[in-house]
Amino acid sequence: MTTPSSGPSSFTACIIIIGNEILSGRTQDTNVAWLAKELNELGIRVEEVRVIPDVEQTIIDTVNTCRKQFTYIFTTGGIGPTHDDITSACIAKAFGAALKQHQEAAAILERHYGPTNLNSARMKMAEIPVGGTLIANPVSAAPGFQIENVYVMAGVPEIMRAMFDSCKHTLKGGDKTLSRTVSAFVTEGMFAQKLTAIAQRHPDVDIGSYPFQRSAGLGTSLVARATDEAALEAAYREVKAMLMAYTPEVIEDDLAA
Amino acid sequence: MTTPSSGPSSFTACIIIIGNEILSGRTQDTNVAWLAKELNELGIRVEEVRVIPDVEQTIIDTVNTCRKQFTYIFTTGGIGPTHDDITSACIAKAFGAALKQHQEAAAILERHYGPTNLNSARMKMAEIPVGGTLIANPVSAAPGFQIENVYVMAGVPEIMRAMFDSCKHTLKGGDKTLSRTVSAFVTEGMFAQKLTAIAQRHPDVDIGSYPFQRSAGLGTSLVARATDEAALEAAYREVKAMLMAYTPEVIEDDLAA
Repeated sequence: MTTPSSGPSSFTACIIIIGNEILSGRTQDTNVAWLAKELNELGIRVEEVRVIPDVEQTIIDTVNTCRKQFTYIFTTGGIGPTHDDITSACIAKAFGAALKQHQEAAAILERHYGPTNLNSARMKMAEIPVGGTLIANPVSAAPGFQIENVYVMAGVPEIMRAMFDSCKHTLKGGDKTLSRTVSAFVTEGMFAQKLTAIAQRHPDVDIGSYPFQRSAGLGTSLVARATDEAALEAAYREVKAMLMAYTPEVIEDDLAA
Repeated sequence: MTTPSSGPSSFTACIIIIGNEILSGRTQDTNVAWLAKELNELGIRVEEVRVIPDVEQTIIDTVNTCRKQFTYIFTTGGIGPTHDDITSACIAKAFGAALKQHQEAAAILERHYGPTNLNSARMKMAEIPVGGTLIANPVSAAPGFQIENVYVMAGVPEIMRAMFDSCKHTLKGGDKTLSRTVSAFVTEGMFAQKLTAIAQRHPDVDIGSYPFQRSAGLGTSLVARATDEAALEAAYREVKAMLMAYTPEVIEDDLAA
């Protein structure tokens, strides 16, 4: 057992969602929430998300800015066989690396498609920046890749999730953020000052206040988050007691999520 | 009737989602997709989204970087009464403006809460950067605000939507992006080269290829987007005919969305 540290994990991540379909509102992204939860399990905190279009210079600039600021970068989208799949080429340019056919990736595609169906468009998916390591894709064969601290994955949620499962053993994290939640039909404006005082007494615990509206009325979910369990419990006990001064009916669940 | 231009709208937007709850994966964001669609109706193209934590310097830096790059900035989250609601104070700092009680905002809160329930935490929601104009909140009274090209709105979707409806008449946009979609149970690797040729013949039309998996099998939705209706139809006819060379069963709907 390691000694728990009370501060947040120093292992950070930025998720870069690449795709016009998210920016146009056509597609509802679900990759961020899924990845954020998985990364937290590994003790890696998502500190920023960027959603950017299928535009070469934007992808290059965003990757180059973010890869210096965070421990890990995860990109999703743009690694398929069509003309709008430009992520691999852009990552190569961002690293000043050549984009070349990767022997192992080509072999994977040959096995998956067979000689009849493996056309040049599909073979494009074997082009990986030199220096990249493949990320296995058990769903539809065509791999993602990792280059330095940048993990390049598909946009389709089922494929992205399978790719993440394939590569997560390579990630190094710190302490996982733990959380406790309590909700009640009390509006946040009623207790905001008391909550501020609790937050100030527990600087290592992140306390979030999230209002919600249900048929039963207005209420608030209070979420305490910390890496140290004892610190978390101490803050949570105060939050819950504070809420119970307004109503005996508190629910240890997240009604605002 | 205005003469249609064939290029994309030159009115751009960046959405900044502020909140630890999105980055932790606790809350599934739905504001981006909703806002993107609404803005497109006004001829404003969302070019970037950033999701950032409740951290003062990050909010200030992100707002100051983005407000110079895009026609409009829309922020959601962090304007409630609790200690983690720091957006208004950060926007004031980003603009080098004082954060002061806004007379009209205070009057709105007084009317809504009445003298008994209007405590100092709630009155914090009347503090607006000097130079800001209120955005009405018909759901829960506490207003958002606009300062220069930055629109500051609540994070709760119902309230954000009502605020956007209150302020959208102040936005100036260009031509709306129109779209046509066709889907079939044909995988994108089969037609990728032909699709590239179509995309090259129609440089003013953005053609996206989105694979999907259904119980009936694998398929692709092809989406053509453009501001000029004639250009859109010309590209769409070619895309649909290309797809029909593989199967007569094409569906004029988005199966991948």
